[in-house]
Amino acid sequence: MKQVRIGLIGSGYIGRAHAVAYAQAPVVFALQGRLVKAALAEASPELAARRARELGFLRAAADWRELVADPDIDVVDICSPNFLHHEMALAAIRHGKHVYAEKPLALNAADAREMAEAARRAGVKTLVGFNYMKNPAASLAKEIIAGGEIGEVIHFYGAHNEDYLADPRTPADWHCFKRTAGLGALGDLAAHIVNMAHYLVGEIAGVCGDMQTVIPQRPARSGSDELVRVENEDQAHAMVRFANGARGVLETSRVACGRKMGLTYVVTGSKGALSFTQERMAELKLYRQDDPANRQGFRTLLLGPQHPDYAAFCAGAGHGIGFNDQKTVEVRDLIDGIAAELPLWPDFAEGWKVSRVLDAIVLSHQASRWVAVDEIG
Amino acid sequence: MKQVRIGLIGSGYIGRAHAVAYAQAPVVFALQGRLVKAALAEASPELAARRARELGFLRAAADWRELVADPDIDVVDICSPNFLHHEMALAAIRHGKHVYAEKPLALNAADAREMAEAARRAGVKTLVGFNYMKNPAASLAKEIIAGGEIGEVIHFYGAHNEDYLADPRTPADWHCFKRTAGLGALGDLAAHIVNMAHYLVGEIAGVCGDMQTVIPQRPARSGSDELVRVENEDQAHAMVRFANGARGVLETSRVACGRKMGLTYVVTGSKGALSFTQERMAELKLYRQDDPANRQGFRTLLLGPQHPDYAAFCAGAGHGIGFNDQKTVEVRDLIDGIAAELPLWPDFAEGWKVSRVLDAIVLSHQASRWVAVDEIG
Amino acid sequence: MKQVRIGLIGSGYIGRAHAVAYAQAPVVFALQGRLVKAALAEASPELAARRARELGFLRAAADWRELVADPDIDVVDICSPNFLHHEMALAAIRHGKHVYAEKPLALNAADAREMAEAARRAGVKTLVGFNYMKNPAASLAKEIIAGGEIGEVIHFYGAHNEDYLADPRTPADWHCFKRTAGLGALGDLAAHIVNMAHYLVGEIAGVCGDMQTVIPQRPARSGSDELVRVENEDQAHAMVRFANGARGVLETSRVACGRKMGLTYVVTGSKGALSFTQERMAELKLYRQDDPANRQGFRTLLLGPQHPDYAAFCAGAGHGIGFNDQKTVEVRDLIDGIAAELPLWPDFAEGWKVSRVLDAIVLSHQASRWVAVDEIG
Amino acid sequence: MKQVRIGLIGSGYIGRAHAVAYAQAPVVFALQGRLVKAALAEASPELAARRARELGFLRAAADWRELVADPDIDVVDICSPNFLHHEMALAAIRHGKHVYAEKPLALNAADAREMAEAARRAGVKTLVGFNYMKNPAASLAKEIIAGGEIGEVIHFYGAHNEDYLADPRTPADWHCFKRTAGLGALGDLAAHIVNMAHYLVGEIAGVCGDMQTVIPQRPARSGSDELVRVENEDQAHAMVRFANGARGVLETSRVACGRKMGLTYVVTGSKGALSFTQERMAELKLYRQDDPANRQGFRTLLLGPQHPDYAAFCAGAGHGIGFNDQKTVEVRDLIDGIAAELPLWPDFAEGWKVSRVLDAIVLSHQASRWVAVDEIG
Repeated sequence: MKQVRIGLIGSGYIGRAHAVAYAQAPVVFALQGRLVKAALAEASPELAARRARELGFLRAAADWRELVADPDIDVVDICSPNFLHHEMALAAIRHGKHVYAEKPLALNAADAREMAEAARRAGVKTLVGFNYMKNPAASLAKEIIAGGEIGEVIHFYGAHNEDYLADPRTPADWHCFKRTAGLGALGDLAAHIVNMAHYLVGEIAGVCGDMQTVIPQRPARSGSDELVRVENEDQAHAMVRFANGARGVLETSRVACGRKMGLTYVVTGSKGALSFTQERMAELKLYRQDDPANRQGFRTLLLGPQHPDYAAFCAGAGHGIGFNDQKTVEVRDLIDGIAAELPLWPDFAEGWKVSRVLDAIVLSHQASRWVAVDEIG
Repeated sequence: MKQVRIGLIGSGYIGRAHAVAYAQAPVVFALQGRLVKAALAEASPELAARRARELGFLRAAADWRELVADPDIDVVDICSPNFLHHEMALAAIRHGKHVYAEKPLALNAADAREMAEAARRAGVKTLVGFNYMKNPAASLAKEIIAGGEIGEVIHFYGAHNEDYLADPRTPADWHCFKRTAGLGALGDLAAHIVNMAHYLVGEIAGVCGDMQTVIPQRPARSGSDELVRVENEDQAHAMVRFANGARGVLETSRVACGRKMGLTYVVTGSKGALSFTQERMAELKLYRQDDPANRQGFRTLLLGPQHPDYAAFCAGAGHGIGFNDQKTVEVRDLIDGIAAELPLWPDFAEGWKVSRVLDAIVLSHQASRWVAVDEIG
Repeated sequence: MKQVRIGLIGSGYIGRAHAVAYAQAPVVFALQGRLVKAALAEASPELAARRARELGFLRAAADWRELVADPDIDVVDICSPNFLHHEMALAAIRHGKHVYAEKPLALNAADAREMAEAARRAGVKTLVGFNYMKNPAASLAKEIIAGGEIGEVIHFYGAHNEDYLADPRTPADWHCFKRTAGLGALGDLAAHIVNMAHYLVGEIAGVCGDMQTVIPQRPARSGSDELVRVENEDQAHAMVRFANGARGVLETSRVACGRKMGLTYVVTGSKGALSFTQERMAELKLYRQDDPANRQGFRTLLLGPQHPDYAAFCAGAGHGIGFNDQKTVEVRDLIDGIAAELPLWPDFAEGWKVSRVLDAIVLSHQASRWVAVDEIG
Repeated sequence: MKQVRIGLIGSGYIGRAHAVAYAQAPVVFALQGRLVKAALAEASPELAARRARELGFLRAAADWRELVADPDIDVVDICSPNFLHHEMALAAIRHGKHVYAEKPLALNAADAREMAEAARRAGVKTLVGFNYMKNPAASLAKEIIAGGEIGEVIHFYGAHNEDYLADPRTPADWHCFKRTAGLGALGDLAAHIVNMAHYLVGEIAGVCGDMQTVIPQRPARSGSDELVRVENEDQAHAMVRFANGARGVLETSRVACGRKMGLTYVVTGSKGALSFTQERMAELKLYRQDDPANRQGFRTLLLGPQHPDYAAFCAGAGHGIGFNDQKTVEVRDLIDGIAAELPLWPDFAEGWKVSRVLDAIVLSHQASRWVAVDEIG
């Protein structure tokens, strides 16, 4: 069996989730390749050594540059802060590595495009960590839409709202600055819902958006009186037009009190509708217009082994899946895609397309007009 | 006790709801005036006679022109199709009547303005039937916001989606034509959510909208092969900016499969949030950021006698209120407002302001740009 | 059209609800008789006069004895405290009146039986105010069960929990004493769920119950230091066996923090299930085993005009019905039953059957064994 | 760091879940011992070899007898069918192994007691796989109750309903026979809710129960015309009395259409209440009587890093945990308990206590009377 040797860069919030998925995937799924947790790079060799031990990687790399050049690595997995994705991915591609990178793919569409084109030219495989579309509930939604069960999609409402910066006393961290994060809520959160819109409905052709920094200054450090300027948006929304004629609305916020994991979508079709919220990630609501008039209603589908990918986690319906299980599906796709040479999606091209939509929203806001996504390079 | 003599024009869907409210209000509330169901006008004297008998009115008018001129009528209640509101209201005002009219107030903002100004000059009282803001849940939301419990409002999401025209086999009726209905979903449904936004957040200063006729042709009659053109929008949405700086999104549709009474709002404040859907009209969800971090969560407030207006209907909390109960609160406001000379709201001025927002959305769609509500006369 | 002249005894909490229903019913429904709010009796002639005026009754009776003897009354409507139902109903029956009485019908099954037999012998019509089974949602549940859509009923879970006495500082009122209330939560609340079980599943043959006074002493008056003994149960539950073989569980409490209107049922059948809670009184959840395996789920049916009785209140689906609307359906049944000589249900015989089940639960608790409902007289 | 070498017997439904937890635990938690997946036994050496490879165990045992005797094993993990637990556990204990066994611990209380006493005498540690009480939501419920936030517990409603045998065409499998499964729904499902009642409220002193085999015969094999007798109960319920005075109701069913993972509890206290259903495993509803009267309501606590154990899985609140994550917490307890000599719970003594309650329900049903749990040996 072909081995797939992973080199992980970064072991914070999301890097740990990758490590959990690497541990779980070979037990849960009958992978088509042999997953090897080969090496881990961190901000310092010491930290790398500690985390490699904790997370079960075979060795620590001195730094990320060593890792991307390591001939015994097949896939470079980039879980570093956003602003480093571009440089690291290009380096990895230069060394002929497949690249698995977290979202947002880059700080802007131009960088993302460069990365997607480099990967295409190099013939390496890529995958972006839009894990919410790996939720079996999303696959089920896709299956329902693709099968025509709700007819032609006429409207998409999508939101990704959270409240991690709702408290004005929360200090400014890397999310708040253009240099480190690029966009604010759009890049951190809306990237997911744009990808979901692409997955479920199709490509977005035009946008018209608005955005706002609600809390323009924050403490420099926890408890500090010193205030620093927040450089990117706390909340944004946009009207969108899909290439296939469907219309929609997108919303995002990082200051939306009470929304903890508010990735939500409502897909309205000519014959039915779907409704989902990630806070109840194991259920999907389906309405079918062809039910008898006095028996119509949204039905709550609890995920079970009769739905995509679920059975690998549990043989019992309704028993529940969690955040890391989505990453585990993603890792399954990665390993199988590389070992068995299957197509991978969402790839860097999709990461670029998502970035274009986000950049188009920003331009639309600045220019106070509709923007065709094609206007963004 | 001063009597308030009602003359009702129209006894269809919404006219009947008014009649139920007139029957209920004097028993439920200790009204400050004596409500008299004086006269009823309909499309024909025969129909008027029958409906007056059925709905408990003292006499039938020959037609609406006789009714508005009747010296024994204090209030003209207009429940006719939209396109007649303007003419009827102006006639009633000329005769010095107070006017209670259904929404949308008129086919467009210009007409609505004329009505509002006529009423102001004549010194008569007016009320528009935006009954959803009379729901005790809305009054409770207002109380919570006004008391600062969720801080400063930073975002408003509002929708009014239904599916009464979702089936393409449903024939075109008066809702579908400009001459009879004016706007489509915007006028019929979004009028409510715009009024709610005004009530809960404040005036809307600017909008940027999009709209679409999803099903451009419909059968002329039930089962007919003849198709006629639908002249107004099936779905629309808009980004809005409030005068006080809050931002928001509005959505409306009459083809949204599965949404039966989808008036929904989420008000996000700097210290909390509110969430409501009319399909569960007797509950309001409240999130408070100042709850302890490990005990935070949206709490479901079931309406009860400790909330505004509810106790009049039932002494038991959570026992439930219904659609007609909202109209009964509205009628209470009407009778008390006239008998005790209290201010009435939403009055024709508000009806005009709602129309301006709707017309601004249409203009914005046509011109593909943001429109200041002030641009509309 | 035959007139049906009502004499109402009592105008407190539930008497007012009757008055609202009397006001609403003739407007909402095309009644088969002419409803006349003829007379009202109260604890004093003065109170009766005031309430008659407020609630729209033609005259006040000196006392209930005068009212039940009044030849110009067709129906005596008993909304007095529980302990008076027996004497009043027997007197009304002696005068040949039809009787509409609130639940619980009597303080015990023996009294209820006497009332039911007296009514049968006198040939008068009777109706007991179990209004929750008049909810269109309950009628819809009945329709679904009767049509075999969920197969044969195998299990019934029913609860009626509230929290009106959850606070130990709430003083003892008439609910707490045997002389005035008879049973506690069983009589006040569980009577409803027993009636619902009869309606939806069938007669209960045997019970095994447990009950408890959770707060054995309460202040004699609000704020008082004097404590008095609570004489009846705060909470109770029972296992039941239906005559048709189905099994079930009943629960009731008046000290169940957070349950405001916790009448809840889950009916499990061999091919599906229904789930309902009165706190969301306008929706019923239906699960059908014959949906495709990957599309199964409880569907939320929002009440609408395609369901029983709803259209009378509103032509729009999902627009909502309230507590008093149930009473209005009940009054429709009353008037039509008397005017058109249709059968009425739940009648006094059903009131007696409910009392037998409750008394059987008490006996079962005292004797620590299963009790056949037939053991109760 | 002390190593903890696991020998797993059985790799079906639940054995696989253990394997996932073994893979995940060392990455998710900072375990206090080094977990070694040492050996795996199955029905045949060939199957054992295959599964060891798939699930990442170092070696395959020839059979379970070899595994329990293996000096290089510290913990025997029993995931075999119920009827084998007793013999295997006693053998493992004889060899001085710690034992981690799935529920129900044994086919009856007598066997469970023998196992618990053998373990106590041998001084080995034991753990029973009641994984639902390892859900952070259950730990949060325990924290809330123990902290007095809902006052004194006065009532517990607990259910574990599923529908895996709801279809009468589903063939009889090992669950249906006394020899292989012992009890039916009581052993397979209610064991969990009894354990949860013990955890959240305290020991159960007395029970009175009812049970029924709803579908008495089933096909011998899928599609077969041959019918065989089902020997144990499809549904059961019981009234319970806790040693501390609280009362309660338990329900269980394996034929409850629509309930996929219907482990549900409602804990009512003198000052508040908790409500939970495993189908929404990452949320707990809390009602507090001391909230202001007009702001009371069940609040939905979404699990997050501020709650017990959650942070190990994800740093983001509301991001969700799944079925296997509960097992991972269980494995964390196992490894830490053994490596750091911490107490383990639920241990075999608890497994025995649960079995006693279940056997008491059966006896109560047979004898038609209340049974003190102490009557069961």
